Amino acid sequence: MSILSYDHLYKFTHDILIKIGCPEFHAQIGAEVLVSADLRGVDSHGVARLSGYIRLWEKGRINTNPNIRIVHESPSTAVVDGDSGLGLVVAPYAMNVAIEKATKAGTGWVSVRNSNHYGIAGYHSMMALDHDMIGLSFTNASPLVSPTFSKERLLGTNPISVAIPADEEPPFVADMATTTAANGKLEILQRKGKEAPSGWIQDKDGNPTTTADGVKNGGALLPLGGDREHGSHKGYALGAIVDIFSAVLSGANYGPWVPPFVAFLDPDPNPVGEGIGHFFGAMRVDAFRPADEFKSHMDNWIRRFRSAEPTPGNDRVLIPGDPERELEATRKKEGIPLLQPVIEDLVDLGKRFGVKF
Amino acid sequence: MSILSYDHLYKFTHDILIKIGCPEFHAQIGAEVLVSADLRGVDSHGVARLSGYIRLWEKGRINTNPNIRIVHESPSTAVVDGDSGLGLVVAPYAMNVAIEKATKAGTGWVSVRNSNHYGIAGYHSMMALDHDMIGLSFTNASPLVSPTFSKERLLGTNPISVAIPADEEPPFVADMATTTAANGKLEILQRKGKEAPSGWIQDKDGNPTTTADGVKNGGALLPLGGDREHGSHKGYALGAIVDIFSAVLSGANYGPWVPPFVAFLDPDPNPVGEGIGHFFGAMRVDAFRPADEFKSHMDNWIRRFRSAEPTPGNDRVLIPGDPERELEATRKKEGIPLLQPVIEDLVDLGKRFGVKF
Repeated sequence: MSILSYDHLYKFTHDILIKIGCPEFHAQIGAEVLVSADLRGVDSHGVARLSGYIRLWEKGRINTNPNIRIVHESPSTAVVDGDSGLGLVVAPYAMNVAIEKATKAGTGWVSVRNSNHYGIAGYHSMMALDHDMIGLSFTNASPLVSPTFSKERLLGTNPISVAIPADEEPPFVADMATTTAANGKLEILQRKGKEAPSGWIQDKDGNPTTTADGVKNGGALLPLGGDREHGSHKGYALGAIVDIFSAVLSGANYGPWVPPFVAFLDPDPNPVGEGIGHFFGAMRVDAFRPADEFKSHMDNWIRRFRSAEPTPGNDRVLIPGDPERELEATRKKEGIPLLQPVIEDLVDLGKRFGVKF
Repeated sequence: MSILSYDHLYKFTHDILIKIGCPEFHAQIGAEVLVSADLRGVDSHGVARLSGYIRLWEKGRINTNPNIRIVHESPSTAVVDGDSGLGLVVAPYAMNVAIEKATKAGTGWVSVRNSNHYGIAGYHSMMALDHDMIGLSFTNASPLVSPTFSKERLLGTNPISVAIPADEEPPFVADMATTTAANGKLEILQRKGKEAPSGWIQDKDGNPTTTADGVKNGGALLPLGGDREHGSHKGYALGAIVDIFSAVLSGANYGPWVPPFVAFLDPDPNPVGEGIGHFFGAMRVDAFRPADEFKSHMDNWIRRFRSAEPTPGNDRVLIPGDPERELEATRKKEGIPLLQPVIEDLVDLGKRFGVKF
């Protein structure tokens, strides 16, 4: 484990993106989105993924100089075509379209096709906060999740993020996979050789298992809820809604057709759409009630929940976004810890592209 | 158990609503919404609740001749004040506002204050389907749910419903409480004297329990996920989002201030808003892509998921809305089964108001 500064990781990522052909502005925003994951503690979505993006670029699956554009619109909606660009760049573009629409129409809703992995969902939803707007961000992803009663993997971990501004309190920021557990958490257990809790995964035959490498061996992650008795049909429905809003509305690939994130697996030769899909929303708070009224009630909401009496063995009730914000504050000050294999990966990448790590 | 026809229950409910002062149109729509729950198998939200509504009316908490109106709007948004009306009536009004907004602006989003219990969430979201729109319906509710790590009950079962049109296939209709299990399911276990599965509830001290009457004795329902290890912080975040969209945006009561549904408990003497809150959305499909394209891809989505290979011991993979639609078809033909205590309750109600049951 080594500790690196945000600035160091940002600059390295930026320089690599320039080397693969990104225009300056794309390299800036792409690096900012990627490293924001490391800052917020979503380590699986940060610089650890950079070499994966590079491999997709080498395969011709990522266009580093894309013509991102609106292909359809109404006063409160748009469809954006990402032209096979980095999702890290396409997503902020689309979220800005949602914010512009909301400025005029009260709300803005943008579905995106022909994109790639977009980093952490929460970066994009949080773009709305400074505008006194509520932000929403969904994306579909490579199929690793089996719907309730399905042996087949038909959905991605399809996250939902919703960011809501407050006044004196920090904002409410939910950012969650629609599965019981994120794939990154499973990978940690695999590395440690530990069992996974029940309800996280099933094996390749569709039976529940606690073997942490079950997903690697043809099994699947399970929707939030874990099994039918604990509401997995609800997690399945949420993942499905994310898939449909992101891809059926925009014309991207959906369900089992979503292109795999790993470069060694080829996309389906008979796609049902283009690339992967995202969905963004922005709602101007004062399209409902005066923003100061809303934000002062949000303060009250947050304080009431945060001060609730905790259950035995727990210190306090958290507000969605608390853990990530606290980690971000620490890591901004003290640096970002990276595992040795990630460091080695980045050093290699630097050598190949002539960028000092 | 007796079997009654839809028409019988509709007419009885309609006539009772007339007797308590509803205008004819309100009695019609209110009865239709209420009995749709019985048709779709959400028995806890159908005619079994009618006497509960009457008790709230007797307490002066329901206004049967409300002046429901828009109090704030933008091209794609509105806030509706329900004037303490029946939620069964206020909700379709507000959903129609969302649909009208969507017709012009592409989408419509309506937050509602000063309302009451609105029946099943799915009735309202499904109103969008005939317009080739996606419909969304959320509501907050009496606090019965403890956020992750909270001993206190701060949220309702706060359902989310999303209805999405298809072409030849029936629509996708998710309609779910944001808890592991709905309160109605727990009541069934209580009646049968059975244990509840782990992860459904905690006791009054905040410890997990399987005693089915735990919630009656000061305990709480748990957010979808059940415990932290199984993602209950995600269910908590979803319930919170429903609460904030429904009530902080509109100026209704939120969190622990939401007025209790039962008439024998008084609302908080220091409310933070008016009545309970709902949130509705309508998205015109062709504000994103041509409706026939979208609907034909929805058919493809639905067929692919429905034909997935099932896990051992299961027949098939379901699409959200399948079970309710199948039950509705049966009950329309064969009638609606009601438990004896519900029948007796309705007979009593009929006698009091001079309406033949």
